[in-house]
Amino acid sequence: MSIDDVRAAAERIRGQVWRTPVVRCPALDELAGAELWLKAENLQRIGAFKARGAMHAVGRLDPQQRARGILTYSSGNHAQAVALAAKTFEAPATIAMPTDAPAIKVAAVRELGARIVFAGTTSHERRAAALELQAETGGTIIEPFDAPEIIAGAGTATLELLDEVRARTGESLDAVLVPVGGGGLIAGACLVCADDSIPVHAVEPRGCDALARSLAAGERVVVTPGPTLADGLKPVQIGALNFAIASAHVRATHLVDDVEIGRAMVRLLLRAKLLVEPSGAAALAAALRGGLEGQPRRIGVLLSGGNVDPTRIEELVRAHAGDA
Amino acid sequence: MSIDDVRAAAERIRGQVWRTPVVRCPALDELAGAELWLKAENLQRIGAFKARGAMHAVGRLDPQQRARGILTYSSGNHAQAVALAAKTFEAPATIAMPTDAPAIKVAAVRELGARIVFAGTTSHERRAAALELQAETGGTIIEPFDAPEIIAGAGTATLELLDEVRARTGESLDAVLVPVGGGGLIAGACLVCADDSIPVHAVEPRGCDALARSLAAGERVVVTPGPTLADGLKPVQIGALNFAIASAHVRATHLVDDVEIGRAMVRLLLRAKLLVEPSGAAALAAALRGGLEGQPRRIGVLLSGGNVDPTRIEELVRAHAGDA
Repeated sequence: MSIDDVRAAAERIRGQVWRTPVVRCPALDELAGAELWLKAENLQRIGAFKARGAMHAVGRLDPQQRARGILTYSSGNHAQAVALAAKTFEAPATIAMPTDAPAIKVAAVRELGARIVFAGTTSHERRAAALELQAETGGTIIEPFDAPEIIAGAGTATLELLDEVRARTGESLDAVLVPVGGGGLIAGACLVCADDSIPVHAVEPRGCDALARSLAAGERVVVTPGPTLADGLKPVQIGALNFAIASAHVRATHLVDDVEIGRAMVRLLLRAKLLVEPSGAAALAAALRGGLEGQPRRIGVLLSGGNVDPTRIEELVRAHAGDA
Repeated sequence: MSIDDVRAAAERIRGQVWRTPVVRCPALDELAGAELWLKAENLQRIGAFKARGAMHAVGRLDPQQRARGILTYSSGNHAQAVALAAKTFEAPATIAMPTDAPAIKVAAVRELGARIVFAGTTSHERRAAALELQAETGGTIIEPFDAPEIIAGAGTATLELLDEVRARTGESLDAVLVPVGGGGLIAGACLVCADDSIPVHAVEPRGCDALARSLAAGERVVVTPGPTLADGLKPVQIGALNFAIASAHVRATHLVDDVEIGRAMVRLLLRAKLLVEPSGAAALAAALRGGLEGQPRRIGVLLSGGNVDPTRIEELVRAHAGDA
């Protein structure tokens, strides 16, 4: 895959997802000691970059495939993204969600018209349920990250970021920081940045370092994710295609802890006026540490989403407003 | 004054303030029963549209005037806006603030390098302090709203909004909703919308209806603002120039109460992922009622700013998350 796949995806999903703003915030620049260009995917449809890949993947199916139904398994933003894409293309969708999914996420998926099947509490159980449905119905499973259409779709966020920085400054970015879960967003970012030789930095929560460990081992390893605020960054394993792309392009990996993530989230809220979910604030947390290799002056930061429970907002504002 | 003044201001402040994004949020559209185009001035420099007018006004001074110093009086966003503008043009700034100003606002103004003079608790006392300083120093007072440069600068927000809607849809807005304090933002909006015959709707907090009462009386009246969450919308009187412009162009006025304002703020936070201060959410509160005269299909909503105390965020999220 290359940047051409991302460009083609951008053409195909134009008008179906938003071109999200790139936000500047001098107060955060000062804290980071660099110019931060914040790609606000929290302002994307369904509140996360996941809308891009899902819209692209569902859009590429032919009408017969769509009529047999769209399937996926997810506890988070991918469920809403697939539900939105299915609704857009008027296809029936069934989504396997965990029995302990928060009511607010279940309601969001239902509002988008998808049917929900509850299946255990692990990603393994959810995937099994989706495969079973596929065997029964001949529907198409939209994978959450390990698929070329998903990676190309996710890459459009980074493509827009670089385009906009170029349009506004006439120059390029010196580095891009990306939060890593299963690896959809970072694989897409790598395809785009490789073309311009822009270093890509991966950011994972401490204890959920599936990519860092896989890069160190030279092959994909399975991890048992530890507890983290960043509930969207807890894969047990990086995707295969994602790992192949990331291992060729990622410059460095960074681990951030819950205090840094919570503080970054509250700083985004109070200073940049953006509601970003903890997973979405992880890359900023790394940027705020400063000291990135090569001392990049102009840094792109992917804010991957903004879906967060109200009680979590209250809790984090209370904890971090004092040092925001 | 006309739209040409606003266009000229836009040329002059280009690059000194942000061109803020226009955000779409289907969930809010559904609640309003219309397409909402949200002009996100909470993402403006210093977190409010006030940066536009202040930058324009200070930028139009000649170097001698700037050297004698910039003065203003404000308890809120205008103080930060003038401090930023003075810093941008390397002019000394002194700002009269109330003795009971929140520490967070005092700190923000100081961070921008301005000197603060504390003067009583009323706008009258602050203005007197600024006039006294002017007599001593020959400095220039940057008025908070009642001045052509401020109105033209504020109008650039609406100009950008209409430009962007036209670029994205090929069409115009059917109505624009604007929160009203002293009248800077709405006077600017009127100049821009008059050119295109777009109806402008004014939104004030119940009990702070200086514009509505003045329009009814056919002349400016002085009010005693009642308590409201919208601390930026509590003028005792609309500006003279502002009233002259608004009375020629405003189609209708709307009064919103604290429950509506708080709920609109929390909906913006949880659904549109934007932190907007209560004053900034007032126009959305009116849009969410629906039933606007002429049933506009495509409505522009000015989100005027995003500077809000963390404890207020916690409190409002707790109160309104359930019905957001």
